[in-house]
Amino acid sequence: MPMLPNPAEKYLPYPAVNFPSNYVRQWPARRTTISPTWLSTDLRDGNQALVNPMSNKTKLELFRLLVDIGFKEIEVAYPSLIEDAEIPEDVAIQIITPARSDLITKSISSLSGAKHAIIHLYNAVSPVFREVVFRNTKAQTIELTLNAVRLVKHLTEEETARSGTRFTLNYCFETFSQTEPEFTVELGNRVLGEWGKASPEDKVEYFSNHINQRDSVILSIHPHNDRGTAVAAAELGLLAGGARVEGCLLGNGERTGNVDLISLALNLYSQGISPHLDFSNLPEIVEIVCRCNEMAVPARYPYAGNLVFSAFAGTHQDAIKKGLDSQAKRWAEVDRSGMGIKSWAMPYIPLDPKDIGYGYENLIRVSSQSGKAGAAYVIKQKMQLDLPRRMQVSFYGVVQKESERLGKEMTAVLITDAFKRTYSIHHLPINRLYLQSYRLLPLSPSSKEPSSPASDYSDDLFALSSAEDHETRFRFEGHVVVDGASRDIQGDGSNTVQAVMNAMHTCLDLELTTGEYAAQMINAEKAPKAATFLELRGPGGESAWGVGISDDVTTSKCRAVISAANGLLGDRPIIPQKMMFTPRPLLAQSQLSDNWLRDVKLRTGHALLPTPEQERTELLQRGTSV
Amino acid sequence: MPMLPNPAEKYLPYPAVNFPSNYVRQWPARRTTISPTWLSTDLRDGNQALVNPMSNKTKLELFRLLVDIGFKEIEVAYPSLIEDAEIPEDVAIQIITPARSDLITKSISSLSGAKHAIIHLYNAVSPVFREVVFRNTKAQTIELTLNAVRLVKHLTEEETARSGTRFTLNYCFETFSQTEPEFTVELGNRVLGEWGKASPEDKVEYFSNHINQRDSVILSIHPHNDRGTAVAAAELGLLAGGARVEGCLLGNGERTGNVDLISLALNLYSQGISPHLDFSNLPEIVEIVCRCNEMAVPARYPYAGNLVFSAFAGTHQDAIKKGLDSQAKRWAEVDRSGMGIKSWAMPYIPLDPKDIGYGYENLIRVSSQSGKAGAAYVIKQKMQLDLPRRMQVSFYGVVQKESERLGKEMTAVLITDAFKRTYSIHHLPINRLYLQSYRLLPLSPSSKEPSSPASDYSDDLFALSSAEDHETRFRFEGHVVVDGASRDIQGDGSNTVQAVMNAMHTCLDLELTTGEYAAQMINAEKAPKAATFLELRGPGGESAWGVGISDDVTTSKCRAVISAANGLLGDRPIIPQKMMFTPRPLLAQSQLSDNWLRDVKLRTGHALLPTPEQERTELLQRGTSV
Repeated sequence: MPMLPNPAEKYLPYPAVNFPSNYVRQWPARRTTISPTWLSTDLRDGNQALVNPMSNKTKLELFRLLVDIGFKEIEVAYPSLIEDAEIPEDVAIQIITPARSDLITKSISSLSGAKHAIIHLYNAVSPVFREVVFRNTKAQTIELTLNAVRLVKHLTEEETARSGTRFTLNYCFETFSQTEPEFTVELGNRVLGEWGKASPEDKVEYFSNHINQRDSVILSIHPHNDRGTAVAAAELGLLAGGARVEGCLLGNGERTGNVDLISLALNLYSQGISPHLDFSNLPEIVEIVCRCNEMAVPARYPYAGNLVFSAFAGTHQDAIKKGLDSQAKRWAEVDRSGMGIKSWAMPYIPLDPKDIGYGYENLIRVSSQSGKAGAAYVIKQKMQLDLPRRMQVSFYGVVQKESERLGKEMTAVLITDAFKRTYSIHHLPINRLYLQSYRLLPLSPSSKEPSSPASDYSDDLFALSSAEDHETRFRFEGHVVVDGASRDIQGDGSNTVQAVMNAMHTCLDLELTTGEYAAQMINAEKAPKAATFLELRGPGGESAWGVGISDDVTTSKCRAVISAANGLLGDRPIIPQKMMFTPRPLLAQSQLSDNWLRDVKLRTGHALLPTPEQERTELLQRGTSV
Repeated sequence: MPMLPNPAEKYLPYPAVNFPSNYVRQWPARRTTISPTWLSTDLRDGNQALVNPMSNKTKLELFRLLVDIGFKEIEVAYPSLIEDAEIPEDVAIQIITPARSDLITKSISSLSGAKHAIIHLYNAVSPVFREVVFRNTKAQTIELTLNAVRLVKHLTEEETARSGTRFTLNYCFETFSQTEPEFTVELGNRVLGEWGKASPEDKVEYFSNHINQRDSVILSIHPHNDRGTAVAAAELGLLAGGARVEGCLLGNGERTGNVDLISLALNLYSQGISPHLDFSNLPEIVEIVCRCNEMAVPARYPYAGNLVFSAFAGTHQDAIKKGLDSQAKRWAEVDRSGMGIKSWAMPYIPLDPKDIGYGYENLIRVSSQSGKAGAAYVIKQKMQLDLPRRMQVSFYGVVQKESERLGKEMTAVLITDAFKRTYSIHHLPINRLYLQSYRLLPLSPSSKEPSSPASDYSDDLFALSSAEDHETRFRFEGHVVVDGASRDIQGDGSNTVQAVMNAMHTCLDLELTTGEYAAQMINAEKAPKAATFLELRGPGGESAWGVGISDDVTTSKCRAVISAANGLLGDRPIIPQKMMFTPRPLLAQSQLSDNWLRDVKLRTGHALLPTPEQERTELLQRGTSV
């Protein structure tokens, strides 16, 4: 059976509030500038809506959390559960009671000895409740309410005389938003008249405009989320005159729940208004609340869900990456000049995750739908490498293919593994070409013969031709493992890269040309290393990127060439040419330590790739110049 | 580190819209009376935000679901995935493209052959995007946008000429709500001028008021839920001039997600406005969406969560129970008279769960925090029994104790089991007292001796003294199992109940008095049965309720007495008195069928209590009068 084609046959729209025709609503033009008073009803309203209500121990844990967060008004079901000593001086305990004399009496007696107690006296006053549930007229509803207020007044005055407890009446029109506005005003005024010592969207505005003793009344709002609009209803209700919000952490409560106080508080906070509640350790708060309520927090739940500070879409990632970079510069400028404020202005992310205890590590997550920026962001975060834009595109293709193959999210570990594998970053003989050692010799301008060995030669990081001036030429001599067999290669060129490429052309018949080039210093504060990014093209115009990292700039360049060559090779056969120079003796296998051999074996699994430090130690042990 | 005490040092509030001082906003006074156009972006925006994006097979399944629900505009990432034949005549496919010429060209070519296609051309235009992400001035932003619109116009005109595809331009100001309203109007008017064939809260109202060619523009809104207010933002946006909403089922999408189209549609529906989307089988829709997205629906998610049509709180349950009863009467009256409408007016439940494929069976769920109404509701639903109010209170005590003991929700099975156990409903010898068989003999008014046997005697259900008139007295003779041993008991009284109680007093030394009494006919249409509810009081004034159910009214009364007596007994010893009449021979064990004995053994486990039908068959087999 489909849904009703004309639902008006069954569902009546909410009646409009009857403002005079020339009346101008005030609330839409207002702005919230201060925080409301918060009332946590987690321990009462929230608890009673749980499939498995809390134990007393759990209630106490949650009570302590609420106090720690900074709530000054906390509703409890049984005050006796909370030891007096647990209630700070400035925290009021609220209890709820329907307008029935037996329950009012019992409730107030349970508060004996409290410093400040709030009696939340409620009855549902909407037509459907009056007519269907209670079968009362309006007059009977008023009389019933006033009798209850009289009793509360009498009993609380007695209790105050006896123990000094200060009481506040929190009279609650349950189902306020479904009640005729005129009736709520009439009833509210009668309640005020009876209590006589009030120190207290449209319907709220109407009520706020018409109620007597307006200055001594605090309008407290208690929205539910059945229409998915509790947060907005509370925010608009505050504009319309509300000054207090009743709700739960993470929106616990009957059915769809009460309004979520965390969303409200952080919405205020992200508009520059302090909620006077502390959610700086939100992950821990969420963990406690979820455990106490035995309910999970949904992944997309505002502020608290585990996906809400994560971007998967490429354009979003790109914008966030640029936003972070730009903000870091802006904030550094504020620090430097002492002028301006370090304001948060981040695409897509309304609140600094760090303000509430989250890091930036999940800001960008990479799936097969993500763009280049996500993978590049991860590589930047994990390896400090700023990939050139076109290399980002290229690596993104690798990640996308891998993600589709695995059919799952590419985590940071998977992405860095793919990067290291693709660009032979591990410098171990598991790719087709592997540079085992080399030396670079400057040739005198007039000569083709080397003048003196210069294997520890260091050139400028940011130039392809580097310290290598235009007149000097270089000779590259390298031990290279080619498809598992050691080879010596040699070539000359006007700079390091050209010399290596010439050696590969001459000795391995690999004809390559250079494309884009970029270089970067990483780990500058601790142990600086050079990173060279190099694009090579094959004879058919196909392109591959390579990366070389080393604490020696020249070595990083040599490695970048080998790395890119590996990317271009594919299955293409390598045909070593006849050697044109006397090879130096290769290191025999026996010269390699047993440990190192075992390590190499282990490290072919991704999880065990060497750290830069390990790699360095290893290279020292092996006693080569690479 | 706590949150910032003055967040204004970091977070700037959203700027207000600059209306003239005498301007009166129109949107707060408006009401939504028609449904907007819906655009599902589940397959694009939703998919790209998933940890594990959908496979092509999954995308196709979700596409078919969207068509079935009734979406007429569906955004897809790659139109080629959807076979032409899959796209109904009246469904338009939308694709999204940033304002970049290569992607525009690729996107439009991918639509070749579609009947109606919508080009969603977007660029983010807010200050933070212009300044941080694109580094464009306003003028550059306009120029970039107009170039893109020109290209779209050119390519779509070509494609229309070639294949007849009808195109609509959906120009999207990404980050509209963070953009200067004046700039959105300027840019919008320039786009309209360029396209030249437009056929289409405050910021939306401002834009709607200022844009040219207003009648030919459709304002489409695309709210996100970062502040937990996407649904409200969409609803207010529609009031302010929006006519189309872009979102996802169950609010999928980046971070906190896009606006949930199900909530929006059902909010409209519950106000009597047809959304022209069919969610009559929401459970199945939810199942498919959750499977495709590999995301669970939160328990408190509006309309779709598994707790949202459940009340745990006693007062809520009481109101809902009364609401259902009252509505059933009102609807029956509409059916009878043919006047009025069967309108939905239910406390706490804004929408009839049956309209969207849910039943009422979960409306009331019982935890240790629930009141009497919940347990009574379950007994009514499962056993048709209308418990008297004070018996509800009494049984609620049982349920609460059981719930606390088990530390979990009392499901319908647990509640009915507790009911049957408490009130010996199974009529099997597992309680201390068990009525095996009896006969009831009317005594002549003048005599204390029976006139004739009347074991199949049937009296009036709704009177304690029933057909038994004031002059007639009755003799009750019963075989009773007392603490495992068969006893014959006998007593006289002015009605059935009095006679049974007299027998228990005389023969078992149990002195009881009657309290409240109620009776009810159940299963009236099929096989009518009598249910007697009886409160008995012990010598100390303590009270217990009993229930007797039988297709024979007298038997139901006898059973109710035994049931209540069992409840009162506790550990108190029973002292059988000297027999004062000749016992009839008891049925020997050998006379009971083997099957029956085995069944009795099985049935002491809760799950296997006999149905009324089984019980009846069994009684017939046993050949007794009970």
